[in-house]
Amino acid sequence: MTVGIGVIGAGMIGQDHVRRITDVVTGAEVVAVADVDAARAEEVASRVHARALASGQDVIDDDLVDAVVVTSWGPTHAEYVLGAIEAGKYVFCEKPLATTAEDCLRIVDAEQASGRRLVQVGFMRRYDAGYRAMKQVIDSGEIGAPLLMHCVHRNRSAPESYHSDMAVQDTAIHEIDTIRWLLDEDIVSAQVVKPRRTSNRFEHLQDPQFMLFETASGARVDLEVFVNCRYGYDIQCETVGETGTVRLPDPESVWVRGAGQLRANVVQDWKQRFGAAFDLEFTEWVSSIEDARPAGPSAWDGYAAAVISDATTEALHSGHVVSVLLKDRPAFYG
Amino acid sequence: MTVGIGVIGAGMIGQDHVRRITDVVTGAEVVAVADVDAARAEEVASRVHARALASGQDVIDDDLVDAVVVTSWGPTHAEYVLGAIEAGKYVFCEKPLATTAEDCLRIVDAEQASGRRLVQVGFMRRYDAGYRAMKQVIDSGEIGAPLLMHCVHRNRSAPESYHSDMAVQDTAIHEIDTIRWLLDEDIVSAQVVKPRRTSNRFEHLQDPQFMLFETASGARVDLEVFVNCRYGYDIQCETVGETGTVRLPDPESVWVRGAGQLRANVVQDWKQRFGAAFDLEFTEWVSSIEDARPAGPSAWDGYAAAVISDATTEALHSGHVVSVLLKDRPAFYG
Amino acid sequence: MTVGIGVIGAGMIGQDHVRRITDVVTGAEVVAVADVDAARAEEVASRVHARALASGQDVIDDDLVDAVVVTSWGPTHAEYVLGAIEAGKYVFCEKPLATTAEDCLRIVDAEQASGRRLVQVGFMRRYDAGYRAMKQVIDSGEIGAPLLMHCVHRNRSAPESYHSDMAVQDTAIHEIDTIRWLLDEDIVSAQVVKPRRTSNRFEHLQDPQFMLFETASGARVDLEVFVNCRYGYDIQCETVGETGTVRLPDPESVWVRGAGQLRANVVQDWKQRFGAAFDLEFTEWVSSIEDARPAGPSAWDGYAAAVISDATTEALHSGHVVSVLLKDRPAFYG
Amino acid sequence: MTVGIGVIGAGMIGQDHVRRITDVVTGAEVVAVADVDAARAEEVASRVHARALASGQDVIDDDLVDAVVVTSWGPTHAEYVLGAIEAGKYVFCEKPLATTAEDCLRIVDAEQASGRRLVQVGFMRRYDAGYRAMKQVIDSGEIGAPLLMHCVHRNRSAPESYHSDMAVQDTAIHEIDTIRWLLDEDIVSAQVVKPRRTSNRFEHLQDPQFMLFETASGARVDLEVFVNCRYGYDIQCETVGETGTVRLPDPESVWVRGAGQLRANVVQDWKQRFGAAFDLEFTEWVSSIEDARPAGPSAWDGYAAAVISDATTEALHSGHVVSVLLKDRPAFYG
Repeated sequence: MTVGIGVIGAGMIGQDHVRRITDVVTGAEVVAVADVDAARAEEVASRVHARALASGQDVIDDDLVDAVVVTSWGPTHAEYVLGAIEAGKYVFCEKPLATTAEDCLRIVDAEQASGRRLVQVGFMRRYDAGYRAMKQVIDSGEIGAPLLMHCVHRNRSAPESYHSDMAVQDTAIHEIDTIRWLLDEDIVSAQVVKPRRTSNRFEHLQDPQFMLFETASGARVDLEVFVNCRYGYDIQCETVGETGTVRLPDPESVWVRGAGQLRANVVQDWKQRFGAAFDLEFTEWVSSIEDARPAGPSAWDGYAAAVISDATTEALHSGHVVSVLLKDRPAFYG
Repeated sequence: MTVGIGVIGAGMIGQDHVRRITDVVTGAEVVAVADVDAARAEEVASRVHARALASGQDVIDDDLVDAVVVTSWGPTHAEYVLGAIEAGKYVFCEKPLATTAEDCLRIVDAEQASGRRLVQVGFMRRYDAGYRAMKQVIDSGEIGAPLLMHCVHRNRSAPESYHSDMAVQDTAIHEIDTIRWLLDEDIVSAQVVKPRRTSNRFEHLQDPQFMLFETASGARVDLEVFVNCRYGYDIQCETVGETGTVRLPDPESVWVRGAGQLRANVVQDWKQRFGAAFDLEFTEWVSSIEDARPAGPSAWDGYAAAVISDATTEALHSGHVVSVLLKDRPAFYG
Repeated sequence: MTVGIGVIGAGMIGQDHVRRITDVVTGAEVVAVADVDAARAEEVASRVHARALASGQDVIDDDLVDAVVVTSWGPTHAEYVLGAIEAGKYVFCEKPLATTAEDCLRIVDAEQASGRRLVQVGFMRRYDAGYRAMKQVIDSGEIGAPLLMHCVHRNRSAPESYHSDMAVQDTAIHEIDTIRWLLDEDIVSAQVVKPRRTSNRFEHLQDPQFMLFETASGARVDLEVFVNCRYGYDIQCETVGETGTVRLPDPESVWVRGAGQLRANVVQDWKQRFGAAFDLEFTEWVSSIEDARPAGPSAWDGYAAAVISDATTEALHSGHVVSVLLKDRPAFYG
Repeated sequence: MTVGIGVIGAGMIGQDHVRRITDVVTGAEVVAVADVDAARAEEVASRVHARALASGQDVIDDDLVDAVVVTSWGPTHAEYVLGAIEAGKYVFCEKPLATTAEDCLRIVDAEQASGRRLVQVGFMRRYDAGYRAMKQVIDSGEIGAPLLMHCVHRNRSAPESYHSDMAVQDTAIHEIDTIRWLLDEDIVSAQVVKPRRTSNRFEHLQDPQFMLFETASGARVDLEVFVNCRYGYDIQCETVGETGTVRLPDPESVWVRGAGQLRANVVQDWKQRFGAAFDLEFTEWVSSIEDARPAGPSAWDGYAAAVISDATTEALHSGHVVSVLLKDRPAFYG
């Protein structure tokens, strides 16, 4: 069986997923593409011998489409995900699941009403080998109960369109999901501290930001978000337990000695850093469709991330500790 | 286009490649399988909805087979590779290309007579990210002309059937190809030094062995082969140039602190260490077939490795430095 | 010239300094020792052929004593330091300089009145090779203006007598001085976050603690203090600047591969970690006396650390951000 | 008690030891200095308030001299060491103990005739923390019986006066002693392989050289000597045992991230790399004199190093494996 996939949104990330499904993932093929820019949809579809359709809804309705990938503009996510659920089709939605917690809840409700898990949200770090090894160490009890987690999220540079809220909504949201998944518990409050800004900044941008989260058990997680760090893309994470710690390695690189120094290259962007994780994410997603056993980040995870992001954004604006108010998790989501 | 692949030899490595072609590589499918054990051929073929054929020659002759993978018993390699060339089909042959240099030469001659490159030999290290980065550093001139290379090849343990010559023929052969490829020159002599044997050995086995190679330009390469090192699978390589050095990193692993120690897991077998390299090897091989532009390790590389292995085996037995006598490389092989 | 040194307080740290001055530091000798326990003073003095005197004041007054080392019980520090200033003698005082900011100020005032720098406070990290290299990198401008600093201070275990305030007053005080020195600016506010406590704790102890400091320029420093981490003594520090970062290395240790792991020992206590720093601290202190050019951490640094510690302790109790109110730094202190 | 030390030879290394004895080592002072250049002896002596004497023999005979340090020109070593033994005085001799094995034997015989251990040879690596930790791991049995050792000795650059034999006599001699000490057995043969020379060489110089040693138990040790490696001073050592390995760490350095790279400084010379080892060497030597219990590298170790160096030099010239013919070790040397 080959899973027929329809892609809604043919921008940079959409094109990357089209390439991935075509060149990397076995057992799946892109059969339809839609984009607000019809010419772009046509161009991307033709590369992989798929059809360009007029609208996202057309993709959802298409008979050859078994599963939908939503990589369109954020504000349109909810509509397409709800459409896919309505059509009883599997749907992979890049984060955010929706731009408001209310819309996330509508999706959660619709999915429950449909009676089965159809939605996966694009939190690819759960597929990174390093994070998976860290989770294995934590779950093994080897370092005891987690008490603290120290995280760093640095980008080489951000475009001028990047504004302070995006440090939470676009950037920290990855750590927010990762924290929940690694520690297997929810975040209950958020605080944001504003360090002196880098002078390599835009006027409007608070960069770096230093975020503090508290989990249900009382563990504390700190996160540096610094999107104009200049030297590379750098993701760090250390979990501190009662009897030990576990830390992500730096990405592999050959070691060169020369000119008085020992040196290794630092990864420059998220594609390099998480390319293998994206590949595995789609490979496992397609497998889970073949097996009809969805296992990735759920609509509920998308909802929780939205609520926590909103609280963190409020904390950024207010300067105060903001509580996270999540609904009770339905039994449907395990 | 989907490349139809016929697999001759359904043992451990053959099965692994069948799985790889099916689950990992896009654009290819296994269409036929043969094995000396017909029941095994049947079993492996049925897993992937392919046909079991009666013989290797039947696989080569099969109309659905565009390209052949030879993973049968070493002494049969030459026959099947020659058969594939005869049939004008692409063929991927696990090392060794043939068990004698003479047979390798027959293949080289047949391929040249056929007028185009059809043969690729399974030297997967050329597809390892670390080795590729090392080659890039060497080729960039960043460390100057290479003068020395220090290599280590350790296996956790070897079975009783493993005998001293296999340290060259089965184990060091990977470094032999890697050295030629990294330094872009041939090996002209070999010497083998016999250290005190590990007491965790079999009576018949000289383990470890310490090999010394000289290249055409006079660079010297040393290689420790230790196949019962007990602690894991460990591949190390450092190239020393006139102005600097480059070294393979250890495989990525999370760092755990606990019980007074900082520690990381060591990879335990070649599947873990080179799994990604095998995947890329087949992905690029299939792409090269689609493009009709073969680019991997050639029959000539297989021949050279055979001649150098033979010289090294002779050096092991004689205790002397043994010269490597290679034919002149035909223009056909670039 | 040999500097005659009188030691007030012959407990563990006092004895260690007596040994250091005798066995490690050239150009100095211990000539007199006092302790509240006269027998202990006698025992320690006799080891190095010095005299045991009846009181700290007797040590200060002794003609053979050129410089005083104060390692007695914290509440007595101020009296002895003031006594040494009164006598016009150099004095090295282990932290804290005094147990209240008021007493620190009295010392600062007395020293200024005396017209010359006589007091050095025992902040030994300024003598650690790693921290010095970090300061050099920061001062060189190589990483740009510092924006953030991430610090970790872990002890294997704390005795039952250790209570929550000591995480600030005894432990974090080292980072408080280090931050001021590395960034060359003062701390203006403190906050303490209380994570879930380790179950390997005493009822009365908040452990770990997570502290946040703001500097005058707006840089933010976070510090994990965890005094029952179980696995060793672990000091980490990363400074994040506008264009790069600099990080302390882990202490040197041989790398062992065995039983499936790559591992190194973690240092177990502060003597191992900072032994060389203590040695250099005293070597430079004695040199500075010989040259009559005091250069180490000053009474003002001791005063600032006391004020910041007090604010941090208040922050621990209140849960709020607490401002640090320092007097203006007198020109006397550069 | 203060040990009065007389220094014969006030060149670079002699001056460094004068400084070390004066500024670093407690319990000792330089009381007399001699040099072939009387003005230089005067200058160096005056720095530390010692007397300049007319000759090495005058230093040996001087009543204030309890122990002699020989740092004169190599060919004069034997005479001064024999003179010190004759005078019944402790003597520390920089390597080589003597320039011929015969002279080393005369020293060994004279020392035995004197009835007590008086001579220590300057093999400072035995005092390096990393090598000591490695020895501890080997001796603990943690990695099983040693089978192989891989060593690297790189210098940034060598002066024009440095010729090929010096790679053995001046450079590899340190590893020769270290191997014997770490493995606690003797070297029985040597071979030298000559790689392509660096083009950053002098015409007369074979650089790098690759040496191979065999020990009495059959362990094999390889050593790269490369004295114009350009990038720094780099000492590496890995011991491979039956069940594991142990490796020297790189010298500690802060880690900087910037401009796309993670980097650390490489040590540039032996003073940086082994400064602490030299300090400890002299501290322990002076202690051993105070205790009258010599424990460092002995005259026998100096003799063995000389014989092995000679064999290695012969191997360099002949291209053959050369056997090492050592006398039986007298019971006097344990």
